[in-house]
This record gives sequence, structure tokens and C-alpha cells, in this order.
Amino acid sequence: MNSISSFEELTAHLKNINIRRRMAVANAVDSHTIEAVLQAVEMGIIEAYMIGDVAAIESPELFSHNPSPFIHIIDIPEVHEATIEAVRMVKSGEADILMKGLVNTDVLLRAILDKEKGILPPGNVLTYNAAMEIPGYHKLLFFSDPVVIPSPNLYQRTAMIKYAIQTAYKFGISKPKIALIHATEVANPKIHYMQDYLDIMQMWRNGEFGDVIMDGPLDIFLALDKERGSIKKVQTPVLGDTDIVIFPNFECANTFYKGLALFAGAQMGGLLQGTTNPVVLTSRSESIYSKFCSIAIACVLT
Amino acid sequence: MNSISSFEELTAHLKNINIRRRMAVANAVDSHTIEAVLQAVEMGIIEAYMIGDVAAIESPELFSHNPSPFIHIIDIPEVHEATIEAVRMVKSGEADILMKGLVNTDVLLRAILDKEKGILPPGNVLTYNAAMEIPGYHKLLFFSDPVVIPSPNLYQRTAMIKYAIQTAYKFGISKPKIALIHATEVANPKIHYMQDYLDIMQMWRNGEFGDVIMDGPLDIFLALDKERGSIKKVQTPVLGDTDIVIFPNFECANTFYKGLALFAGAQMGGLLQGTTNPVVLTSRSESIYSKFCSIAIACVLT
Repeated sequence: MNSISSFEELTAHLKNINIRRRMAVANAVDSHTIEAVLQAVEMGIIEAYMIGDVAAIESPELFSHNPSPFIHIIDIPEVHEATIEAVRMVKSGEADILMKGLVNTDVLLRAILDKEKGILPPGNVLTYNAAMEIPGYHKLLFFSDPVVIPSPNLYQRTAMIKYAIQTAYKFGISKPKIALIHATEVANPKIHYMQDYLDIMQMWRNGEFGDVIMDGPLDIFLALDKERGSIKKVQTPVLGDTDIVIFPNFECANTFYKGLALFAGAQMGGLLQGTTNPVVLTSRSESIYSKFCSIAIACVLT
Repeated sequence: MNSISSFEELTAHLKNINIRRRMAVANAVDSHTIEAVLQAVEMGIIEAYMIGDVAAIESPELFSHNPSPFIHIIDIPEVHEATIEAVRMVKSGEADILMKGLVNTDVLLRAILDKEKGILPPGNVLTYNAAMEIPGYHKLLFFSDPVVIPSPNLYQRTAMIKYAIQTAYKFGISKPKIALIHATEVANPKIHYMQDYLDIMQMWRNGEFGDVIMDGPLDIFLALDKERGSIKKVQTPVLGDTDIVIFPNFECANTFYKGLALFAGAQMGGLLQGTTNPVVLTSRSESIYSKFCSIAIACVLT
């Protein structure tokens, strides 16, 4: 398998393997979610269980205009109950993927984290892993974590990196290049997160992350641009060719992504990871395309 | 005075007021620094004292091709001594602006911070304030601090905000709009820096920052884009029209800027603030234009 270096290639790959994943969508009543799901159904990659308050559906004509045997509408008017039912379907094996519709993230997380009925195995770290397509960058950029863990500790960060590596493998990247990002490449342990980065580099040298290339701390220029990075005269094996950027904290990942979404036309697809099955979780302000890309990533990870 | 909303308008404004500021440049031997200074001299806004190792000048022909009575070359071969001499000129009033050439930032900072011979008044916070011009944003965006203070405390952050406000006033912005940036607009005091943001908002309500508009925590969408921000249905007086973004920490400011420099064509000019006089400090990887913009900002602040 060639590596997948854009969302278009991802879509082509999924069409090619031609498998429908079953997805349970919690309260799929907003039109962005519905349109993204319909696109995935039409493309032949999803069979959708739309669980929620049918009376609250924003654009019911979307369903009547797009009838499909692969869309199942399950009327559960109470959002909390609809969410629990979606999680139950995933846990029982009736669905492969969980997707958040118009549900507060808190409500979804509570259902996922529930010790009996949830889908997070004990000891697993719940985090958010995303892929960004940036016009001007030559491949997809995986990054973590813009949403879930504000200030990762060493244990959480290790898990974040391992999830990102697993994701990169599923995209056919045989030896992912990982950059531990900070403001500077000068490792001063007095600065937040730098000691964790030094520890992680040591773990990498010890083989803990497998067959990957890792370096850090590095700044964005070194990680993502050969020309600007070279001016610094710092040697790094990931120079301008990074697959995975690990950010020090969620504010850093979040502002980086949002700046590029606004001013560089970047598109993101992202998932919760750590759960037994992929969880598509995008905010209401994300575009239909971004939600669609998130579903496509979930399919490749299933 | 109309407000200055781009680097081009800044240059036009400086040409218009037609005042040469005297600038001492510490070890001005690299060609990027020399070219930026020459542009400023040609434009009539700078009289330059190039202090450093004449034998090490990368492109001596730049000077012979551009002879000017407003360029003074002072041969001090030892970098450390050249730096001290540049700082002395500023302290003694022989120069208005200090600029870093090919000097390690540590060496420059030590000279600036020297209790007897330096130019940082006791009790002042030394920080870095920059302006970014982003294609797609309708005005200059001031931001702080991508370089100097890793994790600002409340006292430092208050100073950072006040410097940024003073800078905005010098650009003719009568009532600057300030956004305290984080990953989310939901203020959870358990998350790093959120409590400081809440305290700063209270200080703002008490009038401590004068006649400015402030809000936070806010995410990048709310601060910088009316459309994406509106989807969130969060009321904020700065929505999509922010002049100053205050980042939680330097890694966040740094990665935000560098991402936009690489993929959105953003240009930055920046200065050290807190010193008696503006200090132009750019990294070697910055473009000539970026160095020139930094000099121009220093001129308007002098």
C-alpha cells in the first residue's frame, strides 16, 4: 500500500477497499452532521444508524431526497438516552464507529467513560488525534491533542504518541517522522514540558515507540519547512518532512490548527482515541467536509 | 491620525513624518541585517551605527554600493564588546534604538539586563511584542509573547498587555480590542492560565487597562473570524475584529506565528519591550522584510 497523503487519496483508498462500516450517530439532527453522514453513505463506506429526536431534525428533506437502505433512523427523543443507545450499539458490536451529532461533548464523554456501559478500557488514555491537510504542505499532518487533554503528563503523552503512530501506520506510512514541538529546539528542563520531551526521546532511543523517527524539542520551522529550518543550522532527521507533530499542550495544538484553518485553508479530520472503537467528535463550527474527513479516518482505523 | 492597518501603511506614515531615528546595531555583519538597515536608511527613517567586526561582514559590497552619510561603521572585532558599546550608545542618548545583528540572544540580553550599564529599568518586565500581517485578516494583529517569557505569571502578563496597548495607541488605534486566547472560551480555573485570565478580566472591569475592549478566554475563531466565531453563538465584543491577541504561553504564540508564516504568508515585525528604548531583536531565520518591519515598528514607538 502506498501511503495516503491527502484526504482525496484517503477517499479513493476507501472506495477501493469497498467496505461499509456501521456507524451509530448520537442525536444526528443538525444538517452538517446529516450531510457529512449522507456523503459517506453515498460513497459506500458507511451504513448509518441515526439515533435521536426525529422531530428535531433540521433538514428532514435531506433524508427524503436521499433514500438509502444504508440509513436507519431510530427515534429516541431524549438526547441523553439517544447517546447511551449509540454507545450501547458500539459496545455490543452492532456498530463499528461512534459519532457525535448535536450532543454536548460532556454528555457523550460521560456515556463513553461509564465503567459498565462505556467503551474506554480501564487504564486507557482518552485523547484526540487529528489529521490536517494544509495547502503548501506535501502530505497529511497528524497532530495531537487540540481538544481533550489540557496539559498532558508523561504517561498521557506517551499514549498520545502511540495512538498517532498507529494511525500513521493505517495510512500506510511505514516509518513515521515525529516532531515534539515547542517554541525552541533548545531543551531547557526549566521550561514546561521540556523534561517530558527529554524523557520521551530517551524512551524512543530505547525502542519503546518501535520503528519510527523522532526528534524534539523542535520548533515549527524545523519540523515543517526545509528552507526555514535549514537557516537554523540544526541537524534533525525530520527536517521539513514531519508526519506527526506532538504539541506541548492543548492550547498550542488548538490555536495552531485554528489559525491555519482560517488563514491557510487547512482542513482537519479528527477522532477520539483510546476507546475500543473510533469516535468521530467534531465541534459544531466544523465544516461538512471536516466532519466527512473525520468519518473517513474512522473507517480506515476500523 | 488614521490607524495604521498594514506594514505598507506603517512605512507610508514614517516617510510622511520624515524623522530619522538613530539606531545602534550590535555586530551588524550578516547580510539580512545589513540589507534591512540599508532599506531603512534609504527610506530616510534611520541613521545607523553599525558596530561590529568589520572583517566579518558577509557582504561588504552592500556598503560600497550604497554609500550614505547616515551609515557609520564602527569596528569593534569582539562581539561581546561590540554589543556592550551598542547598549552604551542607547543608554547615553547617542542612539534611540538598539538592534541585534549576529549576536547570540543571551549575549545581548546580558548587556541589556546589566544593572549598571543596561537599559532595563528596575522592576520592568522584559517581554516581546510583535505585529503580524496576515493575508486574509483586515488589519495588523499584535501579539505577545512568542520569544521571551515561557509561562507568564499574572504580573508579567499584566505588563505584556500594557505594552501591547501602548503599541496599539502608537499605531493610531484609539480603542484596541484585546483577546485573551486559549483553546476554549469556557473558563475552567483548573486549566492552566485560566485563573489569570479571570483575574485580568476583573482588572479590566476595574479600569486598570484604560480605554480598551477586552475579552477572554476566547478561542482563535471567536477572536479572528466573524463567521466561524458566530457559529459558536458566544457573545463577545471583540468578535472577529481583535487588535491584540495575548497567548497563554510562549509555545502557543510561537507555533501560531510560525504556522502562519509558513502556510499563510504572514509577515512579522517584533521588538523587546520593557527597556528604556525599543530593541529590534529578530532571529536569523527571519526574512529581510521582517527585520525591516521590526525597525519600522521601533521608529513609530520612539
